[in-house]
Amino acid sequence: MNETIAALATPPGRGAIAIVRCSGPEARAIAARVFRSREPLRDRAAVYGEILDLDGAVIDRGLALAMDAPRTATGEDVVELHVHGSPVVARETLRALFRAGARPAQPGEFTRRAFLNGKLDLSAAEAVADMIDAETRAGARAAAANLAGALRDAVGGARAGLGAILEELAGSIDYPDEVPEPPRSGVAATVAAIDGQLAELERDWERGRLVREGMALAIVGPPNAGKSSLLNGLLGEERAIVSEIAGTTRDVIEERVVVDGVAVRIVDTAGLRASDDRLERIGIGRAEQALAGAALALVVVDGSRPLDDDARAILERTRARPRIVLFNKADLGRAAFETRDVRDADALSGSAHAAETVAAVRAAIGAAALGGEAPDPGRPHLASARQAAAVARGRDALAQARATLDRGDPLDLVAPDLVAAVAALGEITGAAATEAILDGVFARFCIGK
Amino acid sequence: MNETIAALATPPGRGAIAIVRCSGPEARAIAARVFRSREPLRDRAAVYGEILDLDGAVIDRGLALAMDAPRTATGEDVVELHVHGSPVVARETLRALFRAGARPAQPGEFTRRAFLNGKLDLSAAEAVADMIDAETRAGARAAAANLAGALRDAVGGARAGLGAILEELAGSIDYPDEVPEPPRSGVAATVAAIDGQLAELERDWERGRLVREGMALAIVGPPNAGKSSLLNGLLGEERAIVSEIAGTTRDVIEERVVVDGVAVRIVDTAGLRASDDRLERIGIGRAEQALAGAALALVVVDGSRPLDDDARAILERTRARPRIVLFNKADLGRAAFETRDVRDADALSGSAHAAETVAAVRAAIGAAALGGEAPDPGRPHLASARQAAAVARGRDALAQARATLDRGDPLDLVAPDLVAAVAALGEITGAAATEAILDGVFARFCIGK
Repeated sequence: MNETIAALATPPGRGAIAIVRCSGPEARAIAARVFRSREPLRDRAAVYGEILDLDGAVIDRGLALAMDAPRTATGEDVVELHVHGSPVVARETLRALFRAGARPAQPGEFTRRAFLNGKLDLSAAEAVADMIDAETRAGARAAAANLAGALRDAVGGARAGLGAILEELAGSIDYPDEVPEPPRSGVAATVAAIDGQLAELERDWERGRLVREGMALAIVGPPNAGKSSLLNGLLGEERAIVSEIAGTTRDVIEERVVVDGVAVRIVDTAGLRASDDRLERIGIGRAEQALAGAALALVVVDGSRPLDDDARAILERTRARPRIVLFNKADLGRAAFETRDVRDADALSGSAHAAETVAAVRAAIGAAALGGEAPDPGRPHLASARQAAAVARGRDALAQARATLDRGDPLDLVAPDLVAAVAALGEITGAAATEAILDGVFARFCIGK
Repeated sequence: MNETIAALATPPGRGAIAIVRCSGPEARAIAARVFRSREPLRDRAAVYGEILDLDGAVIDRGLALAMDAPRTATGEDVVELHVHGSPVVARETLRALFRAGARPAQPGEFTRRAFLNGKLDLSAAEAVADMIDAETRAGARAAAANLAGALRDAVGGARAGLGAILEELAGSIDYPDEVPEPPRSGVAATVAAIDGQLAELERDWERGRLVREGMALAIVGPPNAGKSSLLNGLLGEERAIVSEIAGTTRDVIEERVVVDGVAVRIVDTAGLRASDDRLERIGIGRAEQALAGAALALVVVDGSRPLDDDARAILERTRARPRIVLFNKADLGRAAFETRDVRDADALSGSAHAAETVAAVRAAIGAAALGGEAPDPGRPHLASARQAAAVARGRDALAQARATLDRGDPLDLVAPDLVAAVAALGEITGAAATEAILDGVFARFCIGK
């Protein structure tokens, strides 16, 4: 905790500016060894100067921005070095800081220090990662709401309500003669109301996850059914090699497209068919994997000719899961579409090369993703499986408390369950977070955050 | 020039911090419409606050760093908004600035304004792009030297020397009775010395370009000769699908590896062979292209068996160009290697799977790239074909002047050639740059720089 850490803070790659950031008690002293300027570093002031290697060679010229504890992102002394956005210059600058006494930051270590120094609660720390990973505007807004404390306040309100009951109970247990028990009906009503709020958070969780994480869609179908053409149509440009030769797409290609505010990760797969060709079998293995991990299957078959065994097998194999079916190549004929199975009643017919077919497929994806209603990104929401599990444990404890109340057992018997619920909810904001919980939360961060 | 421009300044992608930057007379006013804070913006001070959409929704919370003209990168008022390193948040922030009155920056427009405002000469502006694009430490250091003015000073010295002769000549032409002609031998010596400095810059140009731009290397050879295995060995990890099936590598794959400080772009090609298979023909067309654009060919043939027609054809086709030949699969036999053509005397033999073979190939690449001597990155150097062309025109003019001197023609006849040389050299630093030259220089910049 007392070591000074350093990492690249801006995305890797080329740009006008890269920021190398260090944080910790020695940040100023270490930065002074690699940065030379006429003006001294001052709190929150940008100073122009030279970034030096330890051998005195000038790596670059740029700005140093020092920020003094505790009014910084981490709550520690921070110095940012702003250099030209070259991967080589950023790496050399970082190396100079390491030689000058900083150590490489662990993934998420800057945010972890912010949490440990009370700059953020744990739900806000998770929202930082969610914001960076957001693929849509709605996802970023949802993360901004939690980063500003929406979930912290919602959970804090629930804990405070339960805490107030526990306080009244404690009074009546300690001083049974002076302090009356709180009214049973009032306790039951409060517990029910809080449980209702938690249930609402749980209901929003699955739907909100879609907005934040996007949805995996696997395009599957027999070779030469037009999967790559459809992918290109959805992407709006030529991304995959398209060929009339069956079995062209050997590798799984993942592309991203936003449909109705939902980020859809489209996995284009090798032609799914029984094959003795070794390479094709590698591709098909990957396609099966892609299908296994996808929330939605987009099944493409050649609708111009009667279905062959491959096409029938794929329609069967995907029947039990959420899917969209396109009988493709309607411009060449509709034989298969017109004689389709009644269970394929809602299948689409068209040409992957036609804009209206692509639009119809997009609309079907949007409908499958959201069911028509997009969640309000400004509301407090659960943003991780960890938070959802904590709410579930909190609700389990409240269910126990409600059963105790319903059975007419002595009122003070609900106290241990309420304590358990308060503790479970405390894990969300980090008020009751163990080292193991913190390790889990920050493991998903990238280095530099 | 009077419009306020905005762009993402940090590399695209995910990270802890992204910077959206605006520059121009309205930078402060526009930033004030999208940034809300308790403290006012102050020159060179980082202020914490909220970044707002025009509808008042909070996009993110972060820092605003205002820098007042003229002491800024562009020489204009600049405001940087530091937000979370999310592509979505950066895009929303940029969109808010556009709605508030900024317009999208053209590629290189920030640096172009810096040049027009006298913050940088043109050779330093080019060095900015070179630094960002640098692939090696030596490339970045070379760019840093020119950014700091090494080339500007070298070219400025040459122009000043020629200017001094012109001044003396002008005096003796205007006042032939009072001002004596400068001594012919002195003029000749100065022109020769300056021409010698320019010749040195030209000599370093080709070698320096290798360091800055890297070298394209094409791996070619018949199918199944082990090209992808060798590529993977050079890269140190499994990047391409390797298979025993001939013709596996369908696409051209480009990878980068640093050998002796030189960035080598390795182009791995589809098996080069006569083929009726349509897809393979697409791949081979690309391989021919790759070979055409490569400075060095790495020819891989199966050395374990007598050479087939494909292998012989590739050895013939590449004989006239810089190349390295590896007779691969020495672990299976050395039949082809032992009976090789005397013209392949310096061919290597080994296995692409063996570390010592990969090391030998790396050493051969390094020797081919640098011929053993790496240029000193700290010296002034020409960094673009544009600069090299200007030096060449300057030297042409000096050659005319030297011929005039050698012929014993009247001394004042050298003046027009010296004026032409001064003008040509002035294009390098921008002292004599036209709008067309500026357009050419800044066209290679990315947006945001």
